[in-house]
Amino acid sequence: MTKTNAGRFFEDYAVGDVITHAVPRTVSGGERALYHALYPARHALHSSDVFAQSCGLPASPLDDLVSFHTVFGKTVPDVSLNAVANLGYAEGRWLAPLWPGDTVTATSEVIGIKENSNGTSGVVWVRTTGRNQHGADVLRYVRWVMVRKRGSGPAPRAVVPELAPFVAAADLVIPAGLDFSRYDFALAGEPHRLRDYALGEVIDHVDGVTIEEAEHMLATRLWQNTAKVHFDATHRADGKRLIYGGHVMSLARALSFNGLANAQMIVALNGGAHANPCFAGETLRAWSEVLDLAETSAPGVGAIRLRLVATKGAAGVLRGADGKYDADVLLDLDYWALMPI
Amino acid sequence: MTKTNAGRFFEDYAVGDVITHAVPRTVSGGERALYHALYPARHALHSSDVFAQSCGLPASPLDDLVSFHTVFGKTVPDVSLNAVANLGYAEGRWLAPLWPGDTVTATSEVIGIKENSNGTSGVVWVRTTGRNQHGADVLRYVRWVMVRKRGSGPAPRAVVPELAPFVAAADLVIPAGLDFSRYDFALAGEPHRLRDYALGEVIDHVDGVTIEEAEHMLATRLWQNTAKVHFDATHRADGKRLIYGGHVMSLARALSFNGLANAQMIVALNGGAHANPCFAGETLRAWSEVLDLAETSAPGVGAIRLRLVATKGAAGVLRGADGKYDADVLLDLDYWALMPI
Amino acid sequence: MTKTNAGRFFEDYAVGDVITHAVPRTVSGGERALYHALYPARHALHSSDVFAQSCGLPASPLDDLVSFHTVFGKTVPDVSLNAVANLGYAEGRWLAPLWPGDTVTATSEVIGIKENSNGTSGVVWVRTTGRNQHGADVLRYVRWVMVRKRGSGPAPRAVVPELAPFVAAADLVIPAGLDFSRYDFALAGEPHRLRDYALGEVIDHVDGVTIEEAEHMLATRLWQNTAKVHFDATHRADGKRLIYGGHVMSLARALSFNGLANAQMIVALNGGAHANPCFAGETLRAWSEVLDLAETSAPGVGAIRLRLVATKGAAGVLRGADGKYDADVLLDLDYWALMPI
Repeated sequence: MTKTNAGRFFEDYAVGDVITHAVPRTVSGGERALYHALYPARHALHSSDVFAQSCGLPASPLDDLVSFHTVFGKTVPDVSLNAVANLGYAEGRWLAPLWPGDTVTATSEVIGIKENSNGTSGVVWVRTTGRNQHGADVLRYVRWVMVRKRGSGPAPRAVVPELAPFVAAADLVIPAGLDFSRYDFALAGEPHRLRDYALGEVIDHVDGVTIEEAEHMLATRLWQNTAKVHFDATHRADGKRLIYGGHVMSLARALSFNGLANAQMIVALNGGAHANPCFAGETLRAWSEVLDLAETSAPGVGAIRLRLVATKGAAGVLRGADGKYDADVLLDLDYWALMPI
Repeated sequence: MTKTNAGRFFEDYAVGDVITHAVPRTVSGGERALYHALYPARHALHSSDVFAQSCGLPASPLDDLVSFHTVFGKTVPDVSLNAVANLGYAEGRWLAPLWPGDTVTATSEVIGIKENSNGTSGVVWVRTTGRNQHGADVLRYVRWVMVRKRGSGPAPRAVVPELAPFVAAADLVIPAGLDFSRYDFALAGEPHRLRDYALGEVIDHVDGVTIEEAEHMLATRLWQNTAKVHFDATHRADGKRLIYGGHVMSLARALSFNGLANAQMIVALNGGAHANPCFAGETLRAWSEVLDLAETSAPGVGAIRLRLVATKGAAGVLRGADGKYDADVLLDLDYWALMPI
Repeated sequence: MTKTNAGRFFEDYAVGDVITHAVPRTVSGGERALYHALYPARHALHSSDVFAQSCGLPASPLDDLVSFHTVFGKTVPDVSLNAVANLGYAEGRWLAPLWPGDTVTATSEVIGIKENSNGTSGVVWVRTTGRNQHGADVLRYVRWVMVRKRGSGPAPRAVVPELAPFVAAADLVIPAGLDFSRYDFALAGEPHRLRDYALGEVIDHVDGVTIEEAEHMLATRLWQNTAKVHFDATHRADGKRLIYGGHVMSLARALSFNGLANAQMIVALNGGAHANPCFAGETLRAWSEVLDLAETSAPGVGAIRLRLVATKGAAGVLRGADGKYDADVLLDLDYWALMPI
């Protein structure tokens, strides 16, 4: 019997199973510095303790996507080692900030399974929860992946969860103490507040970043994501390493500072698609579309729902006439962020 | 109206303007570790808390060029996004060490403007000040850049600041408590003290480092420097990414350990020129020339004024017969460092 | 007289000499985060403060190989700058964990010298000790290298130290407080305990990592290892940079998580050979062989002696019929690790 983990196959999931993911992780100022080295991240609340304190927080939390990547990385050996495709996200909510010194653990509940008609793979839905060392939830989201079958047994009874198309503004969790009533727009980098954005407005974030192999591998390892396609150039026939979709998310989000500098904290992930694979040598750009605007109960704090698109091409292009993603589009992400009203 | 920042043009500067730069930054042991991963930095005072404490400091401060890069990075969106060239530095002084946990903000005062005779660009001089979370100044320096004009309006009245050719030894600020009277030369790595160096002495630092794209981009992002020429391979016709001049500074300074291990802290930047552009794949070497030697008021602490040259070629070569920099020279920096007497 | 360090030659070593290595180093959460970015390291005890506390430690110590690399790096300017080859290791023991905030210094005692018959080089044996800021030893090991002679003087009297073929299980130092009696196998990632492993068992760790120039240079610099062959592409005729052998060690050890997730802490280095040089672009894999199993005095804590092989080829292959290492083998390491019984 082998001692190595070959990953789970479609047959290994049953609705109601709760998987404890291994390798808890303590984060520090080191992860924070690396995040700033890997991505052009400049949102002031995640860059400065003093700025975060002026917004009512005890210190500057780690970037919200650090929470996401850390929790996601924990799930890879149990959820996506044999995944053919990462199909989607839904109902993602950040429930508490992640602070330097925090230790993250994660569990996933299987909430859906459905075998494909070809009989060789199936779709698995999991609801993943990340917790800190106090047992408090920091992040919860649903993800579904296509997983290979090990054998040729009969299909299990299909269970397809009903998922919300987006998180309702009323369900957003605002970090304790957050207060934008004395928000310093000059230090934040842009004067635009929530009411300056219009529904349907499209923002071209202008800047581009050409990606190197070393960078995406440093990032992916940092989140202890072990999927071999990201690291092993001998894995694919064309010798390319597939870039972790979360690397594209973080790059695009960081680029969106230019035009959305005040969309400070991500509080919900409504949905997302890794539209096309991304490889080193490609130059990534980003654009955003304003999908919704809402108030929150916190002083001075509004919420903006954004479509964030990472592309190798032009801003504004998303799908062709056939409804399929344009070949240049890498990521189509739907999220809520907090912004001064 | 676009929400993204296109940067300032020559017309957007007026003498006396004070610009508050955005995105304050808290630094930690993470930035310190990354500095040591990005550069072969070995000066003991910046490597060891215990060594720094034996020199009278409370702990090991972040490398002096971390202060410089962090402050410089803050200024890029306001000063050099549309810069054609970074022309020079003067009157730079480190006023307080940067400690892990400190938060840096920066402002710049416009102290000079002069339109070029071609009418399409002009030179802007700014005096930039970095401050910590206590409001204390940590660094102040003058920089001038050539900036494109937006339009074809009349030239403003030229104001050219009078700048000191170098910082006088008497004006150097010695960090509070610094005391080299019990300096441990064995732990520092070399036996040479201030009086062992002679005016005009040239030191070949011997070692070379071949630069990779991933490294200079990690570094440049870490300082939140957003100039697109450093990141976007599609920006130039030849597909090259220009390496941030500060990356060359830090590499050369770190290489200078070999021969100048006791030039522990940089306290003044007298001047500097990025003589030629630097690109990935090039192998950088460094040499220094002793320009001056001085005493200070602190026990056992002397000051050495050095020319630090980063080159792709041989040590000692600087300018051709025509007075122009040799094609191999990348950086010509003039600075003061503190060294045991 | 030059001020730069040309390194020691064979004539510069005498048995009984104690060399104080320069540049003490304070480590923090920054080094820890970088270790996780550079290597796919996932051993839970080095990833989570909470997990380490559940094992009786005050916090998560830095990876054991961080201690090794940091101490090794200190020795390079004095021991291996002119080394032709790094020949072997013996009698290595970890004597105390390394914690964030610790400052490491190192000394080496010359314990053997033997000139080669060609009269142009010789072998030098040193016993190196790393200490923390409290003066406590953290690591001690013997290393021997082949070093060039400066001149053609007569050979010194040969002294060849007698070295143990491996550290006896009874001599392993268990970190104070370590207790695996409440060990959480689910969080650690695998169910296998000491008694599940059999002598002679071979484990293929499956995963591969393709190495980039930027990564091995970041790592090697982080440990302040200055050997120019790792950084300067102009140093070798073929333009290749030789990868620091310790980078291969850390990659292989991290890959061995898959099958040895519970081999938590390295406590002894019995021996090791860098069988073939490693270069960027190569894809590294790893396999292990169980050499011995032992009990320790600490509650629930056993010790497993492992051969760890890094290879570009297949698992299980080590030497050819001629007794020489297979051309694909990069590293053959013999170590003890602690594992729940």
